Amino acid sequence: MADFAAVDVIRAKRDGAALSDAQVDWVVDAYTRGQVADEQMAALAMAILLNGMTAPEIARWTAAMISSGERLDLSAVDRPTVDKHSTGGVGDKITLPLTPLVAACGAAVPQLSGRGLGHTGGTLDKLESIPGWRASLGNEEFIAQLRGVGAVICAAGAGLAPADRKLYALRDVTGTVEAIPLIASSIMSKKIAEGTGALVLDVKVGSGAFMKSVDQARQLARTMVELGGAQGVHTVALLTDMSTPLGLAIGNAVEVTESVEVLAGGGPADVVELTLALAREMLDAAGLPDADPAAALRDGRAMDAWRAMLRAQGGDPDAQLPTAREVEVVRADESGVVAQVDAYGMGVAAWRLGAGRARKEDAVSAPAGVLLHKRPGDPVRAGEPLFELRAEDADRIPEARKEAVRAVRIAASAPEKRPLVLERIS
Amino acid sequence: MADFAAVDVIRAKRDGAALSDAQVDWVVDAYTRGQVADEQMAALAMAILLNGMTAPEIARWTAAMISSGERLDLSAVDRPTVDKHSTGGVGDKITLPLTPLVAACGAAVPQLSGRGLGHTGGTLDKLESIPGWRASLGNEEFIAQLRGVGAVICAAGAGLAPADRKLYALRDVTGTVEAIPLIASSIMSKKIAEGTGALVLDVKVGSGAFMKSVDQARQLARTMVELGGAQGVHTVALLTDMSTPLGLAIGNAVEVTESVEVLAGGGPADVVELTLALAREMLDAAGLPDADPAAALRDGRAMDAWRAMLRAQGGDPDAQLPTAREVEVVRADESGVVAQVDAYGMGVAAWRLGAGRARKEDAVSAPAGVLLHKRPGDPVRAGEPLFELRAEDADRIPEARKEAVRAVRIAASAPEKRPLVLERIS
Repeated sequence: MADFAAVDVIRAKRDGAALSDAQVDWVVDAYTRGQVADEQMAALAMAILLNGMTAPEIARWTAAMISSGERLDLSAVDRPTVDKHSTGGVGDKITLPLTPLVAACGAAVPQLSGRGLGHTGGTLDKLESIPGWRASLGNEEFIAQLRGVGAVICAAGAGLAPADRKLYALRDVTGTVEAIPLIASSIMSKKIAEGTGALVLDVKVGSGAFMKSVDQARQLARTMVELGGAQGVHTVALLTDMSTPLGLAIGNAVEVTESVEVLAGGGPADVVELTLALAREMLDAAGLPDADPAAALRDGRAMDAWRAMLRAQGGDPDAQLPTAREVEVVRADESGVVAQVDAYGMGVAAWRLGAGRARKEDAVSAPAGVLLHKRPGDPVRAGEPLFELRAEDADRIPEARKEAVRAVRIAASAPEKRPLVLERIS
Repeated sequence: MADFAAVDVIRAKRDGAALSDAQVDWVVDAYTRGQVADEQMAALAMAILLNGMTAPEIARWTAAMISSGERLDLSAVDRPTVDKHSTGGVGDKITLPLTPLVAACGAAVPQLSGRGLGHTGGTLDKLESIPGWRASLGNEEFIAQLRGVGAVICAAGAGLAPADRKLYALRDVTGTVEAIPLIASSIMSKKIAEGTGALVLDVKVGSGAFMKSVDQARQLARTMVELGGAQGVHTVALLTDMSTPLGLAIGNAVEVTESVEVLAGGGPADVVELTLALAREMLDAAGLPDADPAAALRDGRAMDAWRAMLRAQGGDPDAQLPTAREVEVVRADESGVVAQVDAYGMGVAAWRLGAGRARKEDAVSAPAGVLLHKRPGDPVRAGEPLFELRAEDADRIPEARKEAVRAVRIAASAPEKRPLVLERIS
């Protein structure tokens, strides 16, 4: 591998140049090995955020991050593999019902997930509220469960894209999370390294998402769809609304409960709609266009796959989930129609209640969270419950209440209904 | 002091906002105390480089850096104090004759200098080629010498602007040296903290300088002149040419020898011209407009002050300076007129010969350097000496020779003569 001075690579990007393949390979590798210092990568990340990267640079950067670790081989799985990734939102528990649903329809879903940071929740945090369930699997267990159950949700092993792991922690403290080339390469390097054959991306747009505008989200989605294609992973993206939380539950155990309702054929309409839309995309991408996910929800096959998936990882699907000691119901102080339930505000409220973490070494509270009683468009009378706040510790409620109250707006007439799926990019 | 999250300050600058006074105070102080990490300051420095700072932000940043340490009180000095700062060039030994010259004309010059890094030399490195001379003085010695001799050139103590010391080292490895707000605040925080009453800036423009264009240099000069004024230090700047080396000598001992020639009433015309131009500005700024520096060079008063200044710091003005074991004379391979002697190329050549350092912990060689025999505009015949390379170690010569040969261009006719002083900003 060619050798460079870190400062020359930083200067090139600072001055608006595209990095050469050799520069990208070197800087990603040297950073992973600790030869490029954190402060140098931080300066480079800021220059990338502000000056951008060309499509070939992003592709090379992604390939270099994949090459920093192992790439799983799922050829032993005798079904088409397809995974889904969400860029993160509030109340976004879709992975929970979706993974067993798609497995019930004939594909295998190798879902490597993360934990939450800040106001967005993490899939592993949610599942860990189920007694006995464990997030860590070895590579052999992972592949065996994919073959047997067809559905796995577990933590990404340390061997996958270690460059990304190190870079992500750095970006988090240096204000460089929001760079589209770095978001795209971070997501895609992990998903490609996990070995999935196809991938459906749920790119969130709105106050509760990283991408606040459709333009940004579209750019990110296009970048990732291209990256997947270039690496032989058929990739499709849906842009979906994240201006208001998904469903009624925001937290960990409460989101598991809502997911089980969906798997039982019920659940909030928006959660069902998005679960089915993503399932259809995944099944199409997996070469199973005739599968009928709505039927698999109705007839219990999805629920069976869910229970098998949990059991395979030590979880008890019939166990009582942890409940909160402190519950505070907040009521409407005027009558009208709920005009807004802001996703970001509700995400921050759930985070303050203990559902999320401020630093990556923090623990999360399983029962903490927000349960909405009203959603945008719902009529409400003064005195009716708007939402309830749940926490293990009463001290957490007042701050969370402030955030949650600010997030809700009541008006005289119903707001215009926003579609949930905004765009499809393939 | 208000408390912030580093990442919020970084994001504000990243997104193009001006930092508040409280944010600037906090981030400079927290970085100096180690509460803001190097990688966070690196990201912020890159955001400052790419997004700029407003004049009030730069002023506050400078004030915060001054406040990170002590500010010297020179009121015990019974003469007007005035200092000079050069942004750094090749063959730029002007501080050496200028400091005693201005002292000989009645002002006191509290010159706190630095060491060289990269292709530009450092004043302290040059003076350290004089046997016995020491760069470090305590604050009391510094003030006593200012009162007695009127001239001091010494190292800045660790107590002056420690924030700048830490930040400068970081910028050096993260490609963020070239940010005008950071250059201006770095220079001015140290000069204001040293307690000088007035200041003349020599802002270099050209291949051998940090600022490659007059526009950049003008912007930097204006920024610094404003900063000085806001802190009560009357500040004037000259923009001067650094496309070709100053004088004939580039190195350490060789530049001391050339400086002594100037103090003796001789020396290269350009060195004399710039020394006098800066001396007149300094004496004007010090309220001594009737002083005659040209006379002080002619009649030996400047030389007397030089000798007294060296002796006060242990230096022997009559000592033999170190000489180089290896000398290689490079001759013209064609006849014509010297059209160019590129400052950057010659600076790199001297650096490769050992006159400068690659890392700040390296030592420099006292006798190493380049001695020009021809300057731009000089006629030359094939076979005549163009320059000589001096080193302690013969291994250093071939690489340096390559750089130096590339820096010289011979043409059929004389180049257009560039003025040395390009602009004055006050």
